[in-house]
Amino acid sequence: MIGDGRFDFAAYLADRADQVNAALDRFTPEENIHPASLHTAMRYSLFAGGKRIRPLLCIAAAEAVGGEAKQVLPTACALEMIHTFSLIHDDLPAIDNDDLRRGRPTAHRKFGEAMAVLAGDALHTLAFATIARHQQAADPLTIIAVIREIADASGTPGMVGGQVDDIAAEGVAISAETLRSIHERKTGALLTASLYVGALLGGASAGKREALQRYGAQVGVAFQIVDDILDVVSDDVTLGKPAGSDAKNDKATYPKLFGLETSGRMAQEAADSAIGALASLGEAAEPLRCFARMVVNRDR
Amino acid sequence: MIGDGRFDFAAYLADRADQVNAALDRFTPEENIHPASLHTAMRYSLFAGGKRIRPLLCIAAAEAVGGEAKQVLPTACALEMIHTFSLIHDDLPAIDNDDLRRGRPTAHRKFGEAMAVLAGDALHTLAFATIARHQQAADPLTIIAVIREIADASGTPGMVGGQVDDIAAEGVAISAETLRSIHERKTGALLTASLYVGALLGGASAGKREALQRYGAQVGVAFQIVDDILDVVSDDVTLGKPAGSDAKNDKATYPKLFGLETSGRMAQEAADSAIGALASLGEAAEPLRCFARMVVNRDR
Repeated sequence: MIGDGRFDFAAYLADRADQVNAALDRFTPEENIHPASLHTAMRYSLFAGGKRIRPLLCIAAAEAVGGEAKQVLPTACALEMIHTFSLIHDDLPAIDNDDLRRGRPTAHRKFGEAMAVLAGDALHTLAFATIARHQQAADPLTIIAVIREIADASGTPGMVGGQVDDIAAEGVAISAETLRSIHERKTGALLTASLYVGALLGGASAGKREALQRYGAQVGVAFQIVDDILDVVSDDVTLGKPAGSDAKNDKATYPKLFGLETSGRMAQEAADSAIGALASLGEAAEPLRCFARMVVNRDR
Repeated sequence: MIGDGRFDFAAYLADRADQVNAALDRFTPEENIHPASLHTAMRYSLFAGGKRIRPLLCIAAAEAVGGEAKQVLPTACALEMIHTFSLIHDDLPAIDNDDLRRGRPTAHRKFGEAMAVLAGDALHTLAFATIARHQQAADPLTIIAVIREIADASGTPGMVGGQVDDIAAEGVAISAETLRSIHERKTGALLTASLYVGALLGGASAGKREALQRYGAQVGVAFQIVDDILDVVSDDVTLGKPAGSDAKNDKATYPKLFGLETSGRMAQEAADSAIGALASLGEAAEPLRCFARMVVNRDR
Protein backbone atom coordinates (compact mmCIF):
# COMPACT_ATOMS: atom_id res chain seq x y z
CA MET A 1 0.00 0.00 0.00
CA ILE A 2 2.87 2.36 0.75
CA GLY A 3 5.21 2.80 -2.23
CA ASP A 4 6.63 5.40 -4.58
CA GLY A 5 3.83 7.40 -6.13
CA ARG A 6 1.36 4.60 -5.61
CA PHE A 7 0.38 5.45 -2.05
CA ASP A 8 -3.36 6.14 -1.80
CA PHE A 9 -3.49 8.76 0.96
CA ALA A 10 -7.26 9.29 0.68
CA ALA A 11 -7.88 5.59 1.28
CA TYR A 12 -5.38 5.61 4.15
CA LEU A 13 -7.09 8.59 5.82
CA ALA A 14 -10.56 7.08 5.39
CA ASP A 15 -9.50 3.74 6.88
CA ARG A 16 -7.72 5.22 9.89
CA ALA A 17 -10.50 7.74 10.55
CA ASP A 18 -12.99 4.85 10.51
CA GLN A 19 -10.90 3.01 13.09
CA VAL A 20 -10.75 6.14 15.26
CA ASN A 21 -14.48 6.79 15.02
CA ALA A 22 -15.32 3.18 15.89
CA ALA A 23 -12.98 3.31 18.89
CA LEU A 24 -14.35 6.66 20.07
CA ASP A 25 -17.80 5.12 19.92
CA ARG A 26 -16.64 2.15 22.05
CA PHE A 27 -14.85 4.31 24.63
CA THR A 28 -17.64 6.88 25.12
CA PRO A 29 -20.74 5.93 27.16
CA GLU A 30 -23.88 5.47 25.07
CA GLU A 31 -26.55 8.17 25.01
CA ASN A 32 -29.03 5.92 26.81
CA ILE A 33 -26.72 5.36 29.77
CA HIS A 34 -27.45 7.49 32.82
CA PRO A 35 -26.96 10.52 32.94
CA ALA A 36 -28.26 10.45 29.37
CA SER A 37 -28.28 14.23 28.91
CA LEU A 38 -24.56 14.42 29.69
CA HIS A 39 -23.58 11.55 27.42
CA THR A 40 -25.75 13.02 24.65
CA ALA A 41 -23.94 16.37 24.92
CA MET A 42 -20.52 14.70 24.96
CA ARG A 43 -21.32 12.66 21.87
CA TYR A 44 -22.83 15.64 20.06
CA SER A 45 -19.49 17.43 20.13
CA LEU A 46 -17.31 14.35 19.77
CA PHE A 47 -19.15 13.16 16.63
CA ALA A 48 -19.60 16.54 14.97
CA GLY A 49 -17.52 15.77 11.89
CA GLY A 50 -14.09 16.62 13.29
CA LYS A 51 -11.12 15.90 11.03
CA ARG A 52 -9.48 13.65 13.69
CA ILE A 53 -6.11 15.28 13.03
CA ARG A 54 -4.56 14.46 16.41
CA PRO A 55 -5.58 10.78 16.38
CA LEU A 56 -4.38 10.47 12.77
CA LEU A 57 -1.00 12.00 13.62
CA CYS A 58 -0.67 9.66 16.60
CA ILE A 59 -1.46 6.63 14.45
CA ALA A 60 0.76 7.72 11.55
CA ALA A 61 3.66 8.31 13.96
CA ALA A 62 3.26 4.83 15.45
CA GLU A 63 3.15 3.30 11.98
CA ALA A 64 6.15 5.35 10.83
CA VAL A 65 8.28 3.62 13.46
CA GLY A 66 6.93 0.10 12.88
CA GLY A 67 3.88 0.05 15.14
CA GLU A 68 0.23 -0.55 14.25
CA ALA A 69 -2.85 1.66 14.45
CA LYS A 70 -4.75 -0.70 16.74
CA GLN A 71 -1.92 -0.51 19.31
CA VAL A 72 -2.49 3.21 19.90
CA LEU A 73 -6.26 3.64 19.49
CA PRO A 74 -7.04 4.40 23.17
CA THR A 75 -4.42 7.16 23.25
CA ALA A 76 -5.47 8.45 19.81
CA CYS A 77 -9.06 8.72 21.08
CA ALA A 78 -7.93 10.44 24.28
CA LEU A 79 -6.23 13.13 22.17
CA GLU A 80 -9.49 13.76 20.30
CA MET A 81 -11.45 13.92 23.59
CA ILE A 82 -9.03 16.55 24.93
CA HIS A 83 -9.22 18.54 21.69
CA THR A 84 -13.04 18.38 21.77
CA PHE A 85 -13.27 19.47 25.41
CA SER A 86 -11.08 22.48 24.60
CA LEU A 87 -13.31 23.46 21.65
CA ILE A 88 -16.46 23.24 23.79
CA HIS A 89 -14.96 25.47 26.50
CA ASP A 90 -13.36 27.91 24.03
CA ASP A 91 -16.73 28.39 22.30
CA LEU A 92 -18.42 29.45 25.58
CA PRO A 93 -19.93 32.96 25.76
CA ALA A 94 -17.27 34.02 28.31
CA ILE A 95 -14.43 33.05 25.97
CA ASP A 96 -14.94 33.15 22.16
CA ASN A 97 -18.75 33.29 22.26
CA ASP A 98 -19.15 31.24 19.08
CA ASP A 99 -22.57 30.05 17.92
CA LEU A 100 -21.44 27.67 15.18
CA ARG A 101 -18.90 24.88 15.01
CA ARG A 102 -18.59 22.56 12.01
CA GLY A 103 -21.83 23.93 10.63
CA ARG A 104 -23.90 23.12 13.72
CA PRO A 105 -24.82 25.03 16.89
CA THR A 106 -22.01 24.97 19.46
CA ALA A 107 -22.56 22.83 22.57
CA HIS A 108 -23.77 25.70 24.78
CA ARG A 109 -26.18 26.89 22.05
CA LYS A 110 -27.59 23.38 21.80
CA PHE A 111 -27.60 22.22 25.45
CA GLY A 112 -27.10 25.37 27.55
CA GLU A 113 -23.99 26.73 29.19
CA ALA A 114 -24.02 24.58 32.34
CA MET A 115 -24.13 21.39 30.30
CA ALA A 116 -21.41 22.64 27.94
CA VAL A 117 -19.05 23.30 30.86
CA LEU A 118 -19.77 19.87 32.36
CA ALA A 119 -19.65 17.95 29.06
CA GLY A 120 -16.23 19.50 28.45
CA ASP A 121 -15.08 18.47 31.92
CA ALA A 122 -16.41 14.95 31.41
CA LEU A 123 -14.58 14.54 28.07
CA HIS A 124 -11.41 15.86 29.72
CA THR A 125 -11.49 13.23 32.45
CA LEU A 126 -12.69 10.50 30.04
CA ALA A 127 -9.49 11.04 28.05
CA PHE A 128 -7.33 10.00 31.00
CA ALA A 129 -9.73 7.21 32.00
CA THR A 130 -9.55 5.81 28.46
CA ILE A 131 -5.75 5.65 28.45
CA ALA A 132 -5.59 4.22 31.98
CA ARG A 133 -8.21 1.56 31.23
CA HIS A 134 -7.53 0.56 27.61
CA GLN A 135 -4.00 1.50 26.56
CA GLN A 136 -1.57 -1.43 26.54
CA ALA A 137 2.22 -1.34 26.30
CA ALA A 138 5.07 -3.78 26.84
CA ASP A 139 6.30 -1.55 29.68
CA PRO A 140 3.61 0.11 31.89
CA LEU A 141 6.01 3.04 32.40
CA THR A 142 5.38 3.92 28.75
CA ILE A 143 1.69 4.40 29.51
CA ILE A 144 2.53 6.71 32.42
CA ALA A 145 4.88 8.69 30.13
CA VAL A 146 2.04 9.03 27.61
CA ILE A 147 -0.30 10.39 30.28
CA ARG A 148 2.37 12.84 31.49
CA GLU A 149 3.08 14.07 27.97
CA ILE A 150 -0.60 14.63 27.14
CA ALA A 151 -1.33 16.31 30.49
CA ASP A 152 1.61 18.69 30.02
CA ALA A 153 0.60 19.47 26.44
CA SER A 154 -2.96 20.25 27.61
CA GLY A 155 -2.04 22.25 30.69
CA THR A 156 -0.47 25.58 31.59
CA PRO A 157 2.78 24.92 29.63
CA GLY A 158 0.66 24.01 26.58
CA MET A 159 -2.90 24.35 25.36
CA VAL A 160 -4.62 26.13 28.26
CA GLY A 161 -1.67 28.49 28.77
CA GLY A 162 -1.67 29.37 25.06
CA GLN A 163 -5.40 30.02 25.17
CA VAL A 164 -4.97 32.42 28.12
CA ASP A 165 -2.32 34.36 26.17
CA ASP A 166 -4.45 34.32 23.02
CA ILE A 167 -7.32 35.95 24.93
CA ALA A 168 -4.92 38.49 26.47
CA ALA A 169 -3.59 39.38 22.99
CA GLU A 170 -7.01 40.37 21.58
CA GLY A 171 -6.90 44.00 20.50
CA VAL A 172 -3.21 44.27 21.43
CA ALA A 173 -0.31 44.74 18.98
CA ILE A 174 1.96 41.69 19.38
CA SER A 175 5.18 40.62 17.70
CA ALA A 176 5.56 37.72 15.28
CA GLU A 177 7.52 35.97 18.00
CA THR A 178 4.69 36.28 20.52
CA LEU A 179 2.17 35.12 17.93
CA ARG A 180 4.29 32.07 17.22
CA SER A 181 4.70 31.34 20.94
CA ILE A 182 0.93 31.50 21.47
CA HIS A 183 0.25 29.06 18.66
CA GLU A 184 3.07 26.73 19.64
CA ARG A 185 1.26 26.27 22.93
CA LYS A 186 -2.42 26.69 22.04
CA THR A 187 -2.46 24.22 19.14
CA GLY A 188 1.15 23.13 18.55
CA ALA A 189 1.75 21.43 21.89
CA LEU A 190 -1.05 18.88 21.53
CA LEU A 191 -0.22 18.23 17.84
CA THR A 192 3.42 17.58 18.73
CA ALA A 193 2.39 15.44 21.70
CA SER A 194 0.17 13.38 19.38
CA LEU A 195 3.20 12.46 17.30
CA TYR A 196 5.43 11.92 20.31
CA VAL A 197 3.08 9.55 22.15
CA GLY A 198 2.33 7.65 18.94
CA ALA A 199 6.06 7.18 18.43
CA LEU A 200 6.56 6.19 22.06
CA LEU A 201 3.82 3.53 21.93
CA GLY A 202 5.08 2.36 18.52
CA GLY A 203 8.46 1.65 20.11
CA ALA A 204 10.49 4.39 18.40
CA SER A 205 14.15 5.02 19.17
CA ALA A 206 14.99 8.39 20.77
CA GLY A 207 16.30 9.61 17.41
CA LYS A 208 13.06 8.84 15.59
CA ARG A 209 10.97 10.34 18.39
CA GLU A 210 12.97 13.53 18.10
CA ALA A 211 12.54 13.62 14.30
CA LEU A 212 8.78 13.25 14.74
CA GLN A 213 8.71 16.06 17.29
CA ARG A 214 10.51 18.36 14.84
CA TYR A 215 8.00 17.35 12.17
CA GLY A 216 5.17 18.08 14.61
CA ALA A 217 6.41 21.55 15.48
CA GLN A 218 6.62 22.52 11.78
CA VAL A 219 3.30 20.96 10.83
CA GLY A 220 1.73 22.82 13.75
CA VAL A 221 3.03 26.14 12.40
CA ALA A 222 1.82 25.34 8.87
CA PHE A 223 -1.56 24.29 10.22
CA GLN A 224 -2.04 27.50 12.18
CA ILE A 225 -0.95 29.82 9.36
CA VAL A 226 -3.40 28.12 6.99
CA ASP A 227 -6.15 28.40 9.64
CA ASP A 228 -5.50 32.15 9.79
CA ILE A 229 -5.48 32.44 5.99
CA LEU A 230 -8.75 30.50 5.64
CA ASP A 231 -10.42 32.79 8.17
CA VAL A 232 -9.69 35.67 5.73
CA VAL A 233 -10.28 34.06 2.32
CA SER A 234 -12.97 31.41 2.97
CA ASP A 235 -16.71 31.64 3.63
CA ASP A 236 -18.97 30.47 6.48
CA VAL A 237 -20.34 27.42 4.66
CA THR A 238 -16.96 26.02 3.65
CA LEU A 239 -15.46 26.63 7.10
CA GLY A 240 -18.49 25.41 9.05
CA LYS A 241 -18.04 28.43 11.33
CA PRO A 242 -18.16 32.20 10.79
CA ALA A 243 -15.32 33.37 8.52
CA GLY A 244 -13.69 36.66 9.43
CA SER A 245 -14.05 36.07 13.16
CA ASP A 246 -10.35 36.77 13.83
CA ALA A 247 -10.71 40.29 12.42
CA LYS A 248 -13.98 40.74 14.34
CA ASN A 249 -12.27 39.73 17.60
CA ASP A 250 -9.20 41.83 16.68
CA LYS A 251 -6.95 38.79 16.95
CA ALA A 252 -3.31 38.80 15.95
CA THR A 253 -2.90 36.54 12.90
CA TYR A 254 -0.24 35.74 10.32
CA PRO A 255 -2.07 37.52 7.46
CA LYS A 256 -2.44 40.62 9.66
CA LEU A 257 1.28 40.64 10.51
CA PHE A 258 2.75 39.48 7.18
CA GLY A 259 0.03 39.80 4.53
CA LEU A 260 -1.68 36.93 2.71
CA GLU A 261 1.03 36.19 0.17
CA THR A 262 3.93 36.00 2.60
CA SER A 263 1.78 33.97 5.00
CA GLY A 264 1.08 31.45 2.26
CA ARG A 265 4.80 31.13 1.54
CA MET A 266 5.56 30.70 5.25
CA ALA A 267 3.02 27.88 5.50
CA GLN A 268 4.59 26.12 2.51
CA GLU A 269 8.07 26.51 4.00
CA ALA A 270 6.92 25.07 7.34
CA ALA A 271 5.36 22.08 5.55
CA ASP A 272 8.58 21.55 3.58
CA SER A 273 10.62 21.67 6.81
CA ALA A 274 8.23 19.16 8.36
CA ILE A 275 8.76 16.77 5.45
CA GLY A 276 12.52 17.36 5.67
CA ALA A 277 12.51 16.26 9.32
CA LEU A 278 11.28 12.83 8.21
CA ALA A 279 14.31 12.09 5.99
CA SER A 280 15.56 9.25 8.20
CA LEU A 281 12.16 7.53 8.39
CA GLY A 282 11.77 6.04 4.92
CA GLU A 283 8.60 4.85 3.24
CA ALA A 284 6.75 4.11 6.47
CA ALA A 285 6.50 7.89 7.00
CA GLU A 286 4.77 8.49 3.65
CA PRO A 287 1.36 9.20 5.31
CA LEU A 288 2.99 11.93 7.40
CA ARG A 289 4.51 13.51 4.27
CA CYS A 290 1.12 13.46 2.56
CA PHE A 291 -0.40 14.90 5.70
CA ALA A 292 1.98 17.89 5.65
CA ARG A 293 1.06 18.56 2.00
CA MET A 294 -2.63 18.28 2.81
CA VAL A 295 -2.36 20.80 5.65
CA VAL A 296 -1.31 23.56 3.25
CA ASN A 297 -3.77 22.57 0.49
CA ARG A 298 -6.94 22.15 2.56
CA ASP A 299 -9.99 24.43 2.34
CA ARG A 300 -11.32 23.98 5.89
CA MET B 1 1.48 8.71 68.74
CA ILE B 2 -1.46 6.42 68.06
CA GLY B 3 -2.75 4.68 71.18
CA ASP B 4 -5.84 4.20 73.32
CA GLY B 5 -7.29 7.56 74.30
CA ARG B 6 -3.96 9.31 73.90
CA PHE B 7 -4.18 9.93 70.17
CA ASP B 8 -3.93 13.66 69.43
CA PHE B 9 -6.13 14.00 66.33
CA ALA B 10 -5.78 17.79 66.12
CA ALA B 11 -1.98 17.49 65.98
CA TYR B 12 -2.30 14.70 63.40
CA LEU B 13 -4.58 16.79 61.18
CA ALA B 14 -2.33 19.85 61.44
CA ASP B 15 0.79 17.87 60.55
CA ARG B 16 -0.72 16.06 57.56
CA ALA B 17 -2.42 19.24 56.26
CA ASP B 18 0.97 20.99 56.45
CA GLN B 19 2.52 18.22 54.37
CA VAL B 20 -0.30 18.47 51.82
CA ASN B 21 -0.04 22.25 51.57
CA ALA B 22 3.73 22.14 51.11
CA ALA B 23 3.38 19.50 48.41
CA LEU B 24 0.59 21.42 46.63
CA ASP B 25 2.91 24.42 46.61
CA ARG B 26 5.71 22.34 45.05
CA PHE B 27 3.49 20.75 42.40
CA THR B 28 1.73 23.95 41.27
CA PRO B 29 3.61 26.44 39.06
CA GLU B 30 4.59 29.66 40.83
CA GLU B 31 2.61 32.84 40.23
CA ASN B 32 5.57 34.50 38.49
CA ILE B 33 5.89 31.72 35.90
CA HIS B 34 4.33 32.49 32.53
CA PRO B 35 1.33 32.69 32.04
CA ALA B 36 1.30 34.43 35.43
CA SER B 37 -2.40 35.35 35.36
CA LEU B 38 -3.38 31.69 34.96
CA HIS B 39 -1.09 30.42 37.71
CA THR B 40 -2.30 33.21 40.00
CA ALA B 41 -5.92 32.18 39.46
CA MET B 42 -5.13 28.50 40.03
CA ARG B 43 -3.30 29.24 43.27
CA TYR B 44 -6.02 31.62 44.48
CA SER B 45 -8.54 28.79 44.52
CA LEU B 46 -6.12 26.04 45.54
CA PHE B 47 -4.89 27.97 48.59
CA ALA B 48 -8.21 29.39 49.72
CA GLY B 49 -8.30 27.61 53.07
CA GLY B 50 -9.82 24.32 51.97
CA LYS B 51 -10.07 21.60 54.60
CA ARG B 52 -8.00 19.14 52.46
CA ILE B 53 -10.47 16.37 53.26
CA ARG B 54 -9.68 14.22 50.21
CA PRO B 55 -5.88 14.36 50.64
CA LEU B 56 -6.27 13.64 54.37
CA LEU B 57 -8.47 10.61 53.70
CA CYS B 58 -5.96 9.36 51.11
CA ILE B 59 -3.08 9.72 53.57
CA ALA B 60 -4.99 8.23 56.50
CA ALA B 61 -5.99 5.23 54.36
CA ALA B 62 -2.38 4.63 53.32
CA GLU B 63 -1.26 4.86 56.95
CA ALA B 64 -4.09 2.59 58.12
CA VAL B 65 -2.65 -0.21 55.99
CA GLY B 66 0.99 0.37 56.91
CA GLY B 67 2.04 3.00 54.35
CA GLU B 68 3.40 6.51 54.92
CA ALA B 69 2.04 9.96 54.09
CA LYS B 70 5.00 10.94 51.95
CA GLN B 71 4.43 7.90 49.71
CA VAL B 72 1.05 9.20 48.55
CA LEU B 73 1.49 13.00 48.49
CA PRO B 74 1.36 13.42 44.67
CA THR B 75 -1.93 11.50 44.52
CA ALA B 76 -3.28 13.28 47.61
CA CYS B 77 -2.55 16.63 45.91
CA ALA B 78 -4.13 15.49 42.64
CA LEU B 79 -7.36 14.74 44.55
CA GLU B 80 -7.39 18.30 45.94
CA MET B 81 -6.72 19.76 42.46
CA ILE B 82 -9.69 17.83 41.05
CA HIS B 83 -11.91 18.91 43.93
CA THR B 84 -10.82 22.55 43.48
CA PHE B 85 -11.43 22.52 39.71
CA SER B 86 -14.94 21.19 40.33
CA LEU B 87 -15.68 23.96 42.86
CA ILE B 88 -14.48 26.66 40.43
CA HIS B 89 -16.68 25.34 37.63
CA ASP B 90 -19.70 24.68 39.90
CA ASP B 91 -19.55 28.27 41.16
CA LEU B 92 -19.80 29.70 37.61
CA PRO B 93 -22.80 31.92 36.79
CA ALA B 94 -24.19 29.27 34.42
CA ILE B 95 -24.18 26.62 37.17
CA ASP B 96 -24.58 27.63 40.85
CA ASN B 97 -23.80 31.34 40.32
CA ASP B 98 -22.08 31.71 43.70
CA ASP B 99 -20.21 34.89 44.63
CA LEU B 100 -18.49 33.64 47.77
CA ARG B 101 -16.42 30.57 48.58
CA ARG B 102 -14.60 30.14 51.88
CA GLY B 103 -15.29 33.78 52.73
CA ARG B 104 -13.68 35.17 49.56
CA PRO B 105 -14.97 36.07 46.10
CA THR B 106 -15.30 33.01 43.86
CA ALA B 107 -12.75 32.64 41.03
CA HIS B 108 -15.00 34.14 38.34
CA ARG B 109 -15.86 37.11 40.57
CA LYS B 110 -12.17 37.71 41.17
CA PHE B 111 -10.64 36.95 37.74
CA GLY B 112 -13.56 36.90 35.30
CA GLU B 113 -15.45 33.98 33.83
CA ALA B 114 -13.03 33.09 31.03
CA MET B 115 -10.13 32.77 33.46
CA ALA B 116 -12.26 30.74 35.89
CA VAL B 117 -13.14 28.21 33.19
CA LEU B 118 -9.50 27.94 32.11
CA ALA B 119 -8.02 27.84 35.64
CA GLY B 120 -10.41 24.97 36.40
CA ASP B 121 -9.32 23.15 33.24
CA ALA B 122 -5.66 23.71 34.09
CA LEU B 123 -6.07 22.31 37.63
CA HIS B 124 -7.93 19.33 36.17
CA THR B 125 -5.07 18.44 33.85
CA LEU B 126 -2.41 19.31 36.46
CA ALA B 127 -3.92 16.62 38.70
CA PHE B 128 -3.12 13.90 36.16
CA ALA B 129 0.26 15.46 35.31
CA THR B 130 1.18 15.43 39.01
CA ILE B 131 0.42 11.75 39.45
CA ALA B 132 2.14 10.78 36.20
CA ARG B 133 5.25 12.82 37.02
CA HIS B 134 5.66 12.41 40.78
CA GLN B 135 3.78 9.36 42.07
CA GLN B 136 6.02 6.36 42.76
CA ALA B 137 5.00 2.76 43.39
CA ALA B 138 6.72 -0.61 43.51
CA ASP B 139 4.59 -1.69 40.52
CA PRO B 140 3.87 0.98 37.85
CA LEU B 141 0.53 -0.74 37.18
CA THR B 142 -0.56 0.56 40.60
CA ILE B 143 -0.07 4.13 39.38
CA ILE B 144 -2.17 3.44 36.29
CA ALA B 145 -4.89 1.94 38.52
CA VAL B 146 -4.80 5.10 40.66
CA ILE B 147 -5.26 7.30 37.58
CA ARG B 148 -8.13 5.11 36.35
CA GLU B 149 -9.87 5.19 39.72
CA ILE B 150 -9.62 8.97 40.06
CA ALA B 151 -10.69 9.60 36.45
CA ASP B 152 -13.74 7.36 36.89
CA ALA B 153 -14.65 8.99 40.21
CA SER B 154 -14.42 12.45 38.57
CA GLY B 155 -16.22 11.59 35.35
CA THR B 156 -19.71 10.69 34.18
CA PRO B 157 -20.10 7.67 36.54
CA GLY B 158 -19.02 9.95 39.45
CA MET B 159 -18.64 13.63 40.22
CA VAL B 160 -19.62 15.28 36.92
CA GLY B 161 -22.54 12.89 36.42
CA GLY B 162 -23.80 13.60 39.96
CA GLN B 163 -23.53 17.33 39.35
CA VAL B 164 -25.62 17.04 36.16
CA ASP B 165 -28.34 15.19 38.10
CA ASP B 166 -28.12 17.67 40.97
CA ILE B 167 -28.82 20.54 38.56
CA ALA B 168 -31.67 18.58 36.94
CA ALA B 169 -33.22 17.98 40.40
CA GLU B 170 -33.53 21.69 41.27
CA GLY B 171 -37.17 22.54 41.83
CA VAL B 172 -38.21 18.92 41.31
CA ALA B 173 -39.62 16.54 43.94
CA ILE B 174 -37.19 13.62 44.21
CA SER B 175 -37.12 10.51 46.37
CA ALA B 176 -34.67 9.82 49.19
CA GLU B 177 -33.16 7.16 46.98
CA THR B 178 -32.50 9.62 44.13
CA LEU B 179 -31.05 12.15 46.60
CA ARG B 180 -28.69 9.52 47.92
CA SER B 181 -27.69 8.45 44.42
CA ILE B 182 -26.88 12.05 43.46
CA HIS B 183 -24.67 12.56 46.50
CA GLU B 184 -23.00 9.16 46.16
CA ARG B 185 -21.75 10.36 42.79
CA LYS B 186 -21.37 14.13 43.21
CA THR B 187 -19.29 14.01 46.41
CA GLY B 188 -19.16 10.37 47.54
CA ALA B 189 -17.31 8.94 44.54
CA LEU B 190 -14.21 11.13 44.95
CA LEU B 191 -14.20 10.68 48.75
CA THR B 192 -14.35 6.91 48.37
CA ALA B 193 -11.72 7.01 45.62
CA SER B 194 -9.44 9.01 47.95
CA LEU B 195 -9.52 6.15 50.45
CA TYR B 196 -9.21 3.48 47.80
CA VAL B 197 -6.15 4.94 46.06
CA GLY B 198 -4.48 5.68 49.41
CA ALA B 199 -5.00 2.05 50.38
CA LEU B 200 -3.77 0.86 46.99
CA LEU B 201 -0.55 2.89 47.20
CA GLY B 202 -0.11 1.89 50.84
CA GLY B 203 -0.06 -1.76 49.76
CA ALA B 204 -3.39 -2.86 51.27
CA SER B 205 -4.79 -6.35 50.82
CA ALA B 206 -8.07 -6.63 48.87
CA GLY B 207 -9.93 -7.15 52.17
CA LYS B 208 -8.60 -3.94 53.70
CA ARG B 209 -9.26 -1.97 50.51
CA GLU B 210 -12.83 -3.16 50.58
CA ALA B 211 -13.22 -2.19 54.26
CA LEU B 212 -11.91 1.30 53.46
CA GLN B 213 -14.33 1.65 50.56
CA ARG B 214 -17.24 0.75 52.86
CA TYR B 215 -15.95 3.32 55.35
CA GLY B 216 -15.72 5.89 52.53
CA ALA B 217 -19.27 5.35 51.33
CA GLN B 218 -20.65 5.87 54.87
CA VAL B 219 -18.45 8.87 55.66
CA GLY B 220 -19.55 10.40 52.35
CA VAL B 221 -23.20 10.07 53.36
CA ALA B 222 -22.53 11.55 56.82
CA PHE B 223 -20.56 14.40 55.27
CA GLN B 224 -23.33 15.31 52.83
CA ILE B 225 -26.13 15.16 55.41
CA VAL B 226 -24.16 17.48 57.72
CA ASP B 227 -23.48 19.81 54.77
CA ASP B 228 -27.23 20.02 54.16
CA ILE B 229 -27.93 20.59 57.88
CA LEU B 230 -25.30 23.35 58.14
CA ASP B 231 -26.83 25.11 55.14
CA VAL B 232 -30.04 25.41 57.21
CA VAL B 233 -28.73 26.08 60.73
CA SER B 234 -25.47 27.96 60.17
CA ASP B 235 -24.70 31.53 59.11
CA ASP B 236 -22.72 33.07 56.22
CA VAL B 237 -19.65 33.95 58.29
CA THR B 238 -19.22 30.50 59.83
CA LEU B 239 -19.80 28.73 56.52
CA GLY B 240 -17.70 31.13 54.43
CA LYS B 241 -20.46 31.06 51.82
CA PRO B 242 -24.12 32.09 51.81
CA ALA B 243 -26.16 29.93 54.20
CA GLY B 244 -29.65 28.97 53.02
CA SER B 245 -28.57 28.66 49.39
CA ASP B 246 -30.07 25.17 49.04
CA ALA B 247 -33.53 26.50 49.90
CA LYS B 248 -32.98 29.49 47.60
CA ASN B 249 -32.06 27.17 44.70
CA ASP B 250 -34.92 24.83 45.66
CA LYS B 251 -32.51 21.91 46.05
CA ALA B 252 -33.50 18.55 47.43
CA THR B 253 -31.74 18.07 50.79
CA TYR B 254 -31.88 15.68 53.73
CA PRO B 255 -33.50 18.25 56.09
CA LYS B 256 -36.13 18.99 53.46
CA LEU B 257 -36.97 15.29 53.02
CA PHE B 258 -36.56 14.08 56.61
CA GLY B 259 -36.53 17.14 58.90
CA LEU B 260 -33.53 18.39 60.90
CA GLU B 261 -33.77 15.95 63.80
CA THR B 262 -34.01 12.78 61.73
CA SER B 263 -31.27 14.06 59.41
CA GLY B 264 -28.95 14.54 62.38
CA ARG B 265 -29.65 10.99 63.54
CA MET B 266 -29.01 9.64 60.04
CA ALA B 267 -25.64 11.41 59.91
CA GLN B 268 -24.65 9.92 63.26
CA GLU B 269 -25.70 6.44 62.11
CA ALA B 270 -23.68 6.76 58.92
CA ALA B 271 -20.60 7.85 60.92
CA ASP B 272 -21.10 4.89 63.28
CA SER B 273 -21.35 2.50 60.32
CA ALA B 274 -18.18 4.03 58.86
CA ILE B 275 -16.32 3.38 62.11
CA GLY B 276 -17.77 -0.14 62.21
CA ALA B 277 -16.31 -0.89 58.79
CA LEU B 278 -12.82 -0.32 60.22
CA ALA B 279 -13.10 -3.10 62.84
CA SER B 280 -10.42 -5.25 61.20
CA LEU B 281 -7.92 -2.40 60.88
CA GLY B 282 -6.79 -1.90 64.48
CA GLU B 283 -5.03 1.14 65.94
CA ALA B 284 -3.53 2.31 62.66
CA ALA B 285 -7.04 3.33 61.59
CA GLU B 286 -7.56 5.61 64.61
CA PRO B 287 -7.25 8.83 62.52
CA LEU B 288 -10.04 7.58 60.25
CA ARG B 289 -12.27 6.89 63.27
CA CYS B 290 -11.59 10.40 64.60
CA PHE B 291 -12.28 11.77 61.14
CA ALA B 292 -15.74 10.14 61.03
CA ARG B 293 -16.56 11.68 64.43
CA MET B 294 -15.32 15.08 63.27
CA VAL B 295 -17.50 14.99 60.18
CA VAL B 296 -20.69 14.92 62.26
CA ASN B 297 -19.45 17.45 64.84
CA ARG B 298 -18.05 20.13 62.51
CA ASP B 299 -19.55 23.60 62.11
CA ARG B 300 -18.41 24.30 58.53
